[in-house]
Amino acid sequence: MTDKIYRVNMNELSFKIENVPEEWKGLGGRGFTSTVVASEVDPECHPLGPNNKLVFAPGLLSGTTAVNSGRNSLGAKSPLTGAIKESNVGGTIAGILSKLGVKALIVEGIPKEDKFYQLHVTKNNVEFIEVPELVGKDNYYVLDSMIEKYNKKVAVMSIARPGEMKMVTANISVKDPQGKLRSFGRGGLGAVMGSKKIKCITVDSEKYKEVTLANPQKFKEASKKYTNTLNNNYATSTGLPSFGTAGSVNIINGAGALPSKNFLTGTTENAEFLCGETLAETIKKRDGKTTHGCHAGCIIQCSQVYNDKNGEYLTSGFEFETIWAFGAHLGIKDLDQIAKIDALMDDLGIDSIEIGATLGLAVEAGLIEYGDGEKAYDIIANDIALGTPLGRIIGGGAGNLGKLYGLVRVAVVKNQSMPAYDPRAIKGIGITYATTPMGADHTAGFTVPFNLSKADNRVDPLKKEGQVALSRNVQIQMAMVDSIGMCSFVGRPMMDGPECLLALVDMINARFDSKLTVDSWKNLGKTILKTEKAFNQKAGLTNADDRLPEFMRYEPIPPHNTVWDFTSEEIDEFWNF
Amino acid sequence: MTDKIYRVNMNELSFKIENVPEEWKGLGGRGFTSTVVASEVDPECHPLGPNNKLVFAPGLLSGTTAVNSGRNSLGAKSPLTGAIKESNVGGTIAGILSKLGVKALIVEGIPKEDKFYQLHVTKNNVEFIEVPELVGKDNYYVLDSMIEKYNKKVAVMSIARPGEMKMVTANISVKDPQGKLRSFGRGGLGAVMGSKKIKCITVDSEKYKEVTLANPQKFKEASKKYTNTLNNNYATSTGLPSFGTAGSVNIINGAGALPSKNFLTGTTENAEFLCGETLAETIKKRDGKTTHGCHAGCIIQCSQVYNDKNGEYLTSGFEFETIWAFGAHLGIKDLDQIAKIDALMDDLGIDSIEIGATLGLAVEAGLIEYGDGEKAYDIIANDIALGTPLGRIIGGGAGNLGKLYGLVRVAVVKNQSMPAYDPRAIKGIGITYATTPMGADHTAGFTVPFNLSKADNRVDPLKKEGQVALSRNVQIQMAMVDSIGMCSFVGRPMMDGPECLLALVDMINARFDSKLTVDSWKNLGKTILKTEKAFNQKAGLTNADDRLPEFMRYEPIPPHNTVWDFTSEEIDEFWNF
Repeated sequence: MTDKIYRVNMNELSFKIENVPEEWKGLGGRGFTSTVVASEVDPECHPLGPNNKLVFAPGLLSGTTAVNSGRNSLGAKSPLTGAIKESNVGGTIAGILSKLGVKALIVEGIPKEDKFYQLHVTKNNVEFIEVPELVGKDNYYVLDSMIEKYNKKVAVMSIARPGEMKMVTANISVKDPQGKLRSFGRGGLGAVMGSKKIKCITVDSEKYKEVTLANPQKFKEASKKYTNTLNNNYATSTGLPSFGTAGSVNIINGAGALPSKNFLTGTTENAEFLCGETLAETIKKRDGKTTHGCHAGCIIQCSQVYNDKNGEYLTSGFEFETIWAFGAHLGIKDLDQIAKIDALMDDLGIDSIEIGATLGLAVEAGLIEYGDGEKAYDIIANDIALGTPLGRIIGGGAGNLGKLYGLVRVAVVKNQSMPAYDPRAIKGIGITYATTPMGADHTAGFTVPFNLSKADNRVDPLKKEGQVALSRNVQIQMAMVDSIGMCSFVGRPMMDGPECLLALVDMINARFDSKLTVDSWKNLGKTILKTEKAFNQKAGLTNADDRLPEFMRYEPIPPHNTVWDFTSEEIDEFWNF
Repeated sequence: MTDKIYRVNMNELSFKIENVPEEWKGLGGRGFTSTVVASEVDPECHPLGPNNKLVFAPGLLSGTTAVNSGRNSLGAKSPLTGAIKESNVGGTIAGILSKLGVKALIVEGIPKEDKFYQLHVTKNNVEFIEVPELVGKDNYYVLDSMIEKYNKKVAVMSIARPGEMKMVTANISVKDPQGKLRSFGRGGLGAVMGSKKIKCITVDSEKYKEVTLANPQKFKEASKKYTNTLNNNYATSTGLPSFGTAGSVNIINGAGALPSKNFLTGTTENAEFLCGETLAETIKKRDGKTTHGCHAGCIIQCSQVYNDKNGEYLTSGFEFETIWAFGAHLGIKDLDQIAKIDALMDDLGIDSIEIGATLGLAVEAGLIEYGDGEKAYDIIANDIALGTPLGRIIGGGAGNLGKLYGLVRVAVVKNQSMPAYDPRAIKGIGITYATTPMGADHTAGFTVPFNLSKADNRVDPLKKEGQVALSRNVQIQMAMVDSIGMCSFVGRPMMDGPECLLALVDMINARFDSKLTVDSWKNLGKTILKTEKAFNQKAGLTNADDRLPEFMRYEPIPPHNTVWDFTSEEIDEFWNF
């Protein structure tokens, strides 16, 4: 079975199935989405106008039995950053698209009529279904409707009210194997889906259960080696399964790098209430699950099932960055309150990092008080969901809030909020925030483990030396990982030694009968970054957009009392490869 | 008397009086402000942070007896556009600074304490006065307090509540000779003054009544010739004094270029209620004044005194662009209602173009209905003035409103709203909107009279041919005019023949004993534009920011049904000089 491109035109409500051009055959995931966006989308177009496109592409290894290969990329021009965006997600979509032989689903245009549609994708077909009954409904309602209409295994991607309203914090939610939600979180791609009047996309691969492998035996052997590297890495085998990503609360707080009270200080007084240890203990006490995978085949299991005091399901996919935003930055002490907000944000399909970051900043605008979880819940449930003026402001993200309220301590890059790692105290991540074409994004080049490592080759987080090279290496590696459908944590064993990389290359070759080498794959990673950068330059971004906010240059952050002291020339050296 | 630079440091609450560097001596007005901003302000700084500066500079001929020479420039990095900004104003400030021998007043830094100050400038002195009693007060209150505290002739520049709140539509208001207000209108420089915690600046030149002239006799002769050119031009001698700038309502509407209903169409059904003829008739009926100068020595008198139905003063400086924004774009038919709103905006110190443009766009966001003047007044009086979330949104300008509400038909360039001339139907002004370093601004290069002229050399408004060269010529000319303190309408006789230009050059030479020629002055105009462009490039703007909004490329505007069809290359040709 040869993979095909499914191309949907919303203007005409039509579709075409196309062969994959020769030069795109070796691409998957982010490599595919960024290449298509860069070659087909006018960089000067309005992100919510008819000339933007949504490009969904599973990774090269998605749909196979390889563990942790269930990530799907989505590319477009972002209405939040005005730059190219790749966002990726777990859930079931990557596997199902791959099994159906869909190399990518590309959505273009805007319908002539002001109606919302469901796209239903099956083998060689795309149906356009008017769904007036789903308008104004949120994600769980849509999910349940689709499961009822089709079956439990149907893949679902949907937007809720904020996406319909084209808020730039709206994400696209994706069904996970347990019928819960994961998200294409950052960059407001839910608003792009809303602009195209698509309420949900369903994909049914009922009769197609497997992807074809060119060499099943070689694949199996390589896959086994690869799995071993995950099992031998402390973070992926022990740290993440024990405490989830929330294990980072004590680590980052201990490093003095957990931005608190809107980046005024690097430690929070709330750590004991928010940390992964407390989270795990609470989950166990309430018969939840401390381990849970966001997609089939995940062996890291950094997600969890978090129940409320009565043992009823409250949320899952409860991430460190969300806990940081609401707990340290906005100051809510009560983990149950944050979990409730997290579940609400899932249902409403909004980026929990951007919304939490904005609410923490809103303290400076006088819109909420530090630590007021009730008010935060209320704003999300009654202002964002209903699109009141206050809801539009918070739903517009921190950069826009800052502009409306004349604020200066606004921690955004390319208008996207920084997450849970202060770049004055972990300088490597600052280089990533500044330089990644994505806007402030930790996943684009997560230097933190290498900055905080105890190994001899660690890069001192408080010094400038080595940070640019570190961020560059990790960003290239992440572009590689994001292209094969692997979870970002696969980056950890990749840094332990050559085994993981070699095994992954063998798997790709066994899947496609290709001749990839570690070097050619690395070159692909570099090409992806440069392709993204070139798009951004044509969209009007320059090196002046590769800067952290000015206040970080003159406001030291306790306890280390360090500032962001990279010169422009030092930052721009990043692109010298 | 040698002119000096008064440099104020708000961080230290201190000042210095400096000699003017040799290379800046030939500069005034915009030439001075843009040069200082470009050489002293970090282009990457936050516009509301400690590293932005406010540079006030009267024109080279301000304070002299030359007619229409009372304009004062203000430069800074704009919080609305993120680009360099020069805004200029009439009123009494230019003359008084000039007479005091102040080449420029430069304000730097932000105070350590959260208090508002008055700066009182006198010969060789700047006083810093805490003014808690003025905080939360609006412009007329501040103006009256200062007149009471000093005298009727004191120059006053102030901000009202929106400026204190650092809204990016806040302007800086300036006392005119009759104790009414004029404004440094565009680009949100009131927010910069608010960020520096300056409530008002007063300047007293009581004992200094005249500027010195190197050659009084030559000045007098040249001045007479110059005045004649104004008297011989139809617009400056007849058109503008008869109907004010509102004379343009019928002209632009007749040309099918008056953007109505948020740029959906080029004609308004409200023209008869809004036009200059109706305005003049109403004023006469109510014993107002159809002619009124914004500064001493104005002989064009395009301002007016507009009374209400009972003959009580309502507003003055009631401009065409304000009438367009509220009348055609937002659809208010009642001129009295618009006049009431105009007076309110004066008192609150907000840019009437940006606010009107935003309210017209707000119809698409569902925040107000087309034609609802009561609601518009209410939003300004009770939301903007009080800084409610809705007020922050409208006070944030059209570009930001568009981002929060996911709107695509948003007529901004560099985040600043287009005024009353649709660039699809008058293409020359489109080149100005696109290319001027100021953001969409008609005054930066007002091609309209040359596009709509009946002369043989007119540039057809609907065709592309000749527009780039026209806009370039007019922009260079305006940079020249803005540097000598002349009203922008002096540009009209400048295009009639060489007399006006030659007389102005003679006046400058007679004032300073300089050796300026028409050519060297034109070169200065070019240099100013290139200096501004260079600042913007360092601030992160590129040619991609020199673009009109994408919707104008695919939405034709009736009645001509033309689109904006310039290619990027054609627009970028502008800078080829």
